[in-house]
Amino acid sequence: MALVFHKLVSVEEAIKLIEKETNGIGPLGVIEVPILESINKVLAEDVVAPIDYPPFDRSTVDGYAVRSIDIAGASEIEPKELEVIGKVEVGSHPSIEVKPGTAVQISTGAMVPRGADSIVMEEYVSRKDNKIKIYRMSSPGENISMSGSDIATGDVVIRKNTQITARELAVFAGLGLNKIKVYRPPKIIVYSTGVELEQPGNILPHGKIYDSNGYVITAMLRELGADVEFRGILPDNYDKMKDEISKSINEADILITTGSTSAGYGDMIYKVFNDVGAKIIVHGLKSRPGKPTAIAVLGKKILFGLPGFPLSAMMNLYNIVEPIVRKMMGKGESEKPKVKARIPFRLNAGRGFTELIPVQLVWNKDYLSAYPILSGSGSIAGISISDGYIVAQENREYFEENEEVDVYLFSSSIRPPDLTIIGSNCPGIEVVLNGAKIQNSRIINVGSLGGWNAIKRGDADLAGSHLLDEKTMNYNIHMPKLMGLEDKVYIYRGYSREVGILVKKNNPKNIKDVSDFLRDDIVIINRNKGSGTRVLLDKMLKENGINEPEKLIKGYTYEVKTHSAVATAILQGRADAGISLRAMAELFNLDFIPIGVEIYDFIVRKEKIENKFVNKFLETLKSEEFSKELEKKLPGYKTLKESGERIYP
Amino acid sequence: MALVFHKLVSVEEAIKLIEKETNGIGPLGVIEVPILESINKVLAEDVVAPIDYPPFDRSTVDGYAVRSIDIAGASEIEPKELEVIGKVEVGSHPSIEVKPGTAVQISTGAMVPRGADSIVMEEYVSRKDNKIKIYRMSSPGENISMSGSDIATGDVVIRKNTQITARELAVFAGLGLNKIKVYRPPKIIVYSTGVELEQPGNILPHGKIYDSNGYVITAMLRELGADVEFRGILPDNYDKMKDEISKSINEADILITTGSTSAGYGDMIYKVFNDVGAKIIVHGLKSRPGKPTAIAVLGKKILFGLPGFPLSAMMNLYNIVEPIVRKMMGKGESEKPKVKARIPFRLNAGRGFTELIPVQLVWNKDYLSAYPILSGSGSIAGISISDGYIVAQENREYFEENEEVDVYLFSSSIRPPDLTIIGSNCPGIEVVLNGAKIQNSRIINVGSLGGWNAIKRGDADLAGSHLLDEKTMNYNIHMPKLMGLEDKVYIYRGYSREVGILVKKNNPKNIKDVSDFLRDDIVIINRNKGSGTRVLLDKMLKENGINEPEKLIKGYTYEVKTHSAVATAILQGRADAGISLRAMAELFNLDFIPIGVEIYDFIVRKEKIENKFVNKFLETLKSEEFSKELEKKLPGYKTLKESGERIYP
Repeated sequence: MALVFHKLVSVEEAIKLIEKETNGIGPLGVIEVPILESINKVLAEDVVAPIDYPPFDRSTVDGYAVRSIDIAGASEIEPKELEVIGKVEVGSHPSIEVKPGTAVQISTGAMVPRGADSIVMEEYVSRKDNKIKIYRMSSPGENISMSGSDIATGDVVIRKNTQITARELAVFAGLGLNKIKVYRPPKIIVYSTGVELEQPGNILPHGKIYDSNGYVITAMLRELGADVEFRGILPDNYDKMKDEISKSINEADILITTGSTSAGYGDMIYKVFNDVGAKIIVHGLKSRPGKPTAIAVLGKKILFGLPGFPLSAMMNLYNIVEPIVRKMMGKGESEKPKVKARIPFRLNAGRGFTELIPVQLVWNKDYLSAYPILSGSGSIAGISISDGYIVAQENREYFEENEEVDVYLFSSSIRPPDLTIIGSNCPGIEVVLNGAKIQNSRIINVGSLGGWNAIKRGDADLAGSHLLDEKTMNYNIHMPKLMGLEDKVYIYRGYSREVGILVKKNNPKNIKDVSDFLRDDIVIINRNKGSGTRVLLDKMLKENGINEPEKLIKGYTYEVKTHSAVATAILQGRADAGISLRAMAELFNLDFIPIGVEIYDFIVRKEKIENKFVNKFLETLKSEEFSKELEKKLPGYKTLKESGERIYP
Repeated sequence: MALVFHKLVSVEEAIKLIEKETNGIGPLGVIEVPILESINKVLAEDVVAPIDYPPFDRSTVDGYAVRSIDIAGASEIEPKELEVIGKVEVGSHPSIEVKPGTAVQISTGAMVPRGADSIVMEEYVSRKDNKIKIYRMSSPGENISMSGSDIATGDVVIRKNTQITARELAVFAGLGLNKIKVYRPPKIIVYSTGVELEQPGNILPHGKIYDSNGYVITAMLRELGADVEFRGILPDNYDKMKDEISKSINEADILITTGSTSAGYGDMIYKVFNDVGAKIIVHGLKSRPGKPTAIAVLGKKILFGLPGFPLSAMMNLYNIVEPIVRKMMGKGESEKPKVKARIPFRLNAGRGFTELIPVQLVWNKDYLSAYPILSGSGSIAGISISDGYIVAQENREYFEENEEVDVYLFSSSIRPPDLTIIGSNCPGIEVVLNGAKIQNSRIINVGSLGGWNAIKRGDADLAGSHLLDEKTMNYNIHMPKLMGLEDKVYIYRGYSREVGILVKKNNPKNIKDVSDFLRDDIVIINRNKGSGTRVLLDKMLKENGINEPEKLIKGYTYEVKTHSAVATAILQGRADAGISLRAMAELFNLDFIPIGVEIYDFIVRKEKIENKFVNKFLETLKSEEFSKELEKKLPGYKTLKESGERIYP
């Protein structure tokens, strides 16, 4: 099959195409299952009560079965006397009859004997031998649960197409049904594909990456109630791949692969789907992430070739595969839980593609804020920290700051964190949280300036910042004025961290300071613009009389966003030197040439200072144990005399 | 053990007592599980990244790896030319290096070769043999996903105590972890007890009832993630019961029984718990339903003796057992999902007990209404139709009409029905819904007048009513004026149903009309006050000159709430005659003495008349197929000339 240029279709069009080419998607058939196995499946027939419930008139209390007419007018002052002529036990069929002037003792749940129309509770009765005195009248029907009063024979108790929960079991079992008919869940076989994949648990060869898609997809579809089998990584050989898929599609209703869908893979999946006899109906989606997607049908069976990037695969699973599986299970339309939230800053999105952007929710005082996760479709961290996603339609150019959007949630319930910290990333925060025993926190890394903006919006409980004022050489205290937050925030001193040049172990290229960066044999790795560390390097270069460093220093334009990425680049030989933290040198076993010390502080809005968790956090900064733990866990980190003290205003 | 009078405790006190007597409830220990089995469990340790993710710098597109400096200024007009010196395949470790003036072809996901700092997308390149022209400049780092940019070695990626979902698996697998440490879910053994119990699937002996509690409890605790085994109905013999429980408590962390807790059962469960060596710490709860509850501890193990009535057992499971199990699983405090709703009518509740009242939610235009389900703690239908429950504290006397309350939901997501019908119960409604193919409807039976009130509140889309105006002998059209709804509602004609006297097959007592009800050998079964059928009987008795029927007619005060309950009473010999529908006589194989025909209509608020489902429903009333189906399914039911037509105004 030659590679042809095909029209991209939208998610909605793709679903319609599948419906059309399979002659409609719906329940696959009916199976009978024991009721305990029916949970999360869908009832395939009306449940019509075969018996009454309760099946007989029963007493709802412990007491005496009487004729109400016999005790009319009974009171504390004028009790009525009756003769006890027997007792009805629970679970028995009484032959005794209550005649005028008599009563029969009865237990909760026991059958009301003939003749009685009311039960008097034990506590209104005094007994001596077989005589009782009744101190309270009782109306006809009182304390009796009538046969069929809850469910009558022939009632449609639970309707066809109801999704079964534990509560429906009360009715099934109570009516004597130990098995019920449900729609057969689809059999789904899942594969991962890609030469670059290695199975988790094995050693990772250089250039390879662990497979994660197969696990996520399997777990997601199992949560939906489907019968899913994950068959691992497909062999990277056309013939073997074809054989395997050809066999599997016979056993399955749906077959899902991830990876090998982009042009760089030579459209392997398209060929395989085509060659096992399936008709390819989608050659790419007009959505981002998720574009490189193949969909094929073989009779009523559906084959999905999802993209290899984790977020892309997951989004297509949510938006195309899940609705199809729901229909096959009889679950009716998927109603994705959603909430309204506001975008905290202007965000470019859409522009010709339907774009799905994962977000983290933040509980502002008055509304939810949705912080976009911009780590890209290859990110796995983005998947685990996101609460849901927003949709930018293809004709959209951007979201405005504070624009209200729908957030489609990944879970139906969302729980606000105890503490939200937004700002510059620092491994020290984890040490504080541990010390403060704060478990349910949320950390959002948007840089120091992003942290100040979050404080301004009221999104953050705390913000971490290490912004140096070059005029005064002080950290952070110049910011409130700059942000227009002079009377709105407090700044608390955090801790210091040692910054320096990272080089390979034993410093093979004998680097002494930043002036060595000019050498011909040296390639550096740089931090992103706006990071505190980048500011520091540029300042030092200027002090050394180095202007236009992008022309003079090799690797100056090679930017990474975290301290640890600098260390990795040096460890892997992609660079010879870079500015980072001593803590990173220790962690990655590199050499460290000290440059100086920078200060990392915490910002809090005045009205949040009474918050229990903010308090715990700031108190921890002062503690002796925290100080020890910080130095132990993060070499080069130190608390200061003022740690945990207010330094502004 | 003698039966002693014990202090009832609140649910909160009960949990505190358990905590105290077991020296605190918490995770039971740590187990390692394959990641696919970790879903719905709780992480028992911080997941610290053992590698970078991605593990190397990789291309995010198909294209060419270049030195960005070589193509600075490239444009459509002034393309830059480079020599292609090789290709990097996905999954391989390239040894090739990009030197000035050269480029290397690269696939999505492949490792960026040394020397390159940017990837140009294929679409901005034209190639001829090993020469390429690049028509667009590319910045350093463009289209490269840097090693560790998503997750860096040493990052705490997922924190201890996180509840694991499919999304966390992306991180576990992506970091190469095929197993993780989670808290061991508690082993829970469940029994039902009670001589009256029969296992679903068996034939039901007279006086017995099917066990439903064991199934509901097992399913509910499994949904929570616990390791639950349901061991069926305990033998009704003290020694056998004791042996069984004694053995089971050795294997389990929690043991749950239902039933045998009320005084009528001789406190069997208290004795057994006591005699297996457990310390009984709760002898009854100050809550309703759920009072007869035993709780005992044996070391760290907990034994729950829950009540036998289904709603009672379920409420205690939700409010006591579930929070304990959550703590054992490390799930932190149970945050029950809740919504605000209004009570549609004054409701007595509380009065010395904490009362939990199950409710059905109704979507009013402006708010939710919570209709209490008052079918009692023995009800199983009430369990399956309820959305959640409201709590009346013990010092409360009643809820006012329209009072706003918290509804604690049984499921975290609730879906509004397509159509809400509130009013008088009628099996005909099911036939209409079937004909209209409306699946997701909600029927709430509150009687004809209750239906009119629901229309007035705006709770109901439709109300079913058969109220006779004795002055005009017309049905329903007198109601709008009475309710102050003259300009607010339409009435649509429904159908007629034949009413008569139900008697045993072949009419053994030779009953001819209601005057026979006065005979000494006749016991009747009556309908509840306010029901249309009761109104009809009273009218006929009056016409026959019968006053004070409660004194003259045996069984006149024996009231049931549904047509089918009348039939059951006659079938089981508890009564000789009663007023009901011909449809019921047919269903229960009874004889039917016709009295007359009554009309059942549907009310709709003017503004709801455009609703799609209301329309479908009313249109169905007019259809020929529906007419045939109605007569077939419900003998004595008939459509009328005006069925589905507006009769008011």
